[in-house]
Amino acid sequence: MSSLTIASPADFHVHLRQGSLCKLTTPHVKQGGFDLAYVMPNLKPPVTNVEQALAYKAELEAIDSSVEYLMTLYLSPELTPEEIRKAKVAGITGVKSYPRGVTTNSDGGIESYEAYYPVFAAMEEEDMVLNLHGEVPSDADTDTHVLNAEARFLPHLHKLHARFPALRIVLEHATTRAAIDAVRACGPTVAATITAHHLALVVDDWAGQSWNFCKPVAKFPSDRTALREVIREGHPRVFLGSDSAPHPPHSKSVSSPDHGCAAGIYTSPVLLPLVAHLLESFGALDRLEGFVSTFGRRFYKRELSADAAPPSVQLRKVPEGNTIEKEYTSADDSLVPFWAGKQIGWEIVRS
Amino acid sequence: MSSLTIASPADFHVHLRQGSLCKLTTPHVKQGGFDLAYVMPNLKPPVTNVEQALAYKAELEAIDSSVEYLMTLYLSPELTPEEIRKAKVAGITGVKSYPRGVTTNSDGGIESYEAYYPVFAAMEEEDMVLNLHGEVPSDADTDTHVLNAEARFLPHLHKLHARFPALRIVLEHATTRAAIDAVRACGPTVAATITAHHLALVVDDWAGQSWNFCKPVAKFPSDRTALREVIREGHPRVFLGSDSAPHPPHSKSVSSPDHGCAAGIYTSPVLLPLVAHLLESFGALDRLEGFVSTFGRRFYKRELSADAAPPSVQLRKVPEGNTIEKEYTSADDSLVPFWAGKQIGWEIVRS
Repeated sequence: MSSLTIASPADFHVHLRQGSLCKLTTPHVKQGGFDLAYVMPNLKPPVTNVEQALAYKAELEAIDSSVEYLMTLYLSPELTPEEIRKAKVAGITGVKSYPRGVTTNSDGGIESYEAYYPVFAAMEEEDMVLNLHGEVPSDADTDTHVLNAEARFLPHLHKLHARFPALRIVLEHATTRAAIDAVRACGPTVAATITAHHLALVVDDWAGQSWNFCKPVAKFPSDRTALREVIREGHPRVFLGSDSAPHPPHSKSVSSPDHGCAAGIYTSPVLLPLVAHLLESFGALDRLEGFVSTFGRRFYKRELSADAAPPSVQLRKVPEGNTIEKEYTSADDSLVPFWAGKQIGWEIVRS
Repeated sequence: MSSLTIASPADFHVHLRQGSLCKLTTPHVKQGGFDLAYVMPNLKPPVTNVEQALAYKAELEAIDSSVEYLMTLYLSPELTPEEIRKAKVAGITGVKSYPRGVTTNSDGGIESYEAYYPVFAAMEEEDMVLNLHGEVPSDADTDTHVLNAEARFLPHLHKLHARFPALRIVLEHATTRAAIDAVRACGPTVAATITAHHLALVVDDWAGQSWNFCKPVAKFPSDRTALREVIREGHPRVFLGSDSAPHPPHSKSVSSPDHGCAAGIYTSPVLLPLVAHLLESFGALDRLEGFVSTFGRRFYKRELSADAAPPSVQLRKVPEGNTIEKEYTSADDSLVPFWAGKQIGWEIVRS
């Protein structure tokens, strides 16, 4: 295959941040081949109400109006069933749950779900989506650590699904075979996103290399195989959410024992070619459209109109390879993308 | 307990390197409270014959003659049964095996043990010690990675022990419950060393923090518990080998996605107070002398003379804590120790 055209791609998990950084990241959604961004709410302060979410959406649209932004709220005690109903009316799509302290800007994350059952009940009624960062916090006393944090979260997923069977739930950035098996075992209201970088990395890649460190951490080769397999099989409840997370170079570097690096990997500006390259590497290129567009759009009820010619993106094979940029810069910020300086075999055909 | 005196401590696994760096590291053995250093042979080029080992020993003695250096050879095809016999006569103590490519300067490491059976037979006859870096190389096809690399090595340990039951074997820097269980299950000729840093770190500590990255990587809290338990119980075949490994700050830092950091943690200059601090933290201070001196000396047949007053080191409690140096420097080199800037509760009484 030397070129392919796929229905308008949608990234169902992306961090665009705020302020000057947001001006650099937001155009990268389109540059990376995507027409829809499902926007994470972990700003400082987090996006906890409708007013903030709409203001944030307006900010993003002012930067690049060619992308559709689906907005989310940050699950916190401030969020009430009334706010959920308001959010629905305002066109907000989902609510993101962060366990306390497990990743970037998650200090206000939740510690127990039961307090939120009234909110979840309202979400279920209003047909909103619950997005779960599926990790429990590390705790040496219970032998909980970054490698088993996702597997140990899965009982929470099952419990929520049993209690709210009509609530659409997305287990974000699944990294383990256990997570994939759990989502398979759930009903049609439960999906998983998978990032591009978790299709490439394993634990050895971030051992001693902070630029490959993200949360959840990349797991074992057998887990990566499970992620690749579920994509190759074309499972309709498994789709792309890049979790593309912009961190400036100084916060991805480690220059002393006093400060570790920020968790996150930046893929937005090269996302679609990167995903095509990766899927081709494990024999799943024929699943590209499902993975990056139709499966997610169907789950989120953002399907493209069937009666008109729907928007699409064309990719072409680059046998000699294209080199991924070393850095993206603006006057105020710079970002180093995943696989900076490496070759990928696909590019977007710009009209 | 506000002070304690222990028989002359011995570090049964230390990297002193060569050239200018060696001049900085070597005096740190004594400074860290140790009178004996079991010296690793992974120089560039590796120490593969008697002549090199003796030259290296002379270099170390010229720097600090107050420490006893036990020398090792690097297991490689160059090593013959004849060289083993020569080594024994020359007072060389052991042979270190590195699996190929798993740690610093291990490119010339071994891929299969059977080719070395004649060497091991000679070592068994000559009563030399085989020191094993007990990890198999990572291999995605077999789901082998930095977290299970040690557990998957253990069948090699059992096989070597069964084939050469009188050969003294040390499983170096044990990091897992599986390794401790394996060594327990072996006969009196098999021992394990444990480092100071593996008594402190778990996987979360090196996730995104390259200064805590070493090989074998620190494992899960339950593994760290197993290391602490076997020390607390005073197992006579488990003793300190610091694996103190000097790497300059630029090679422990990570400043770009292109280069990961070197594997290794530097503990030599603060070793004895650090170990006392750690053992006290998990209720094993009464095992300090066994762990840092008598158990290892007995296994290595370097016991202190019982008829005279043997050399000893005195430690005293520092309730207010001493701050570990941020850096040790010479004209040519600098080294940042483990726990730089942190407080530890013990210090050596210098006479």
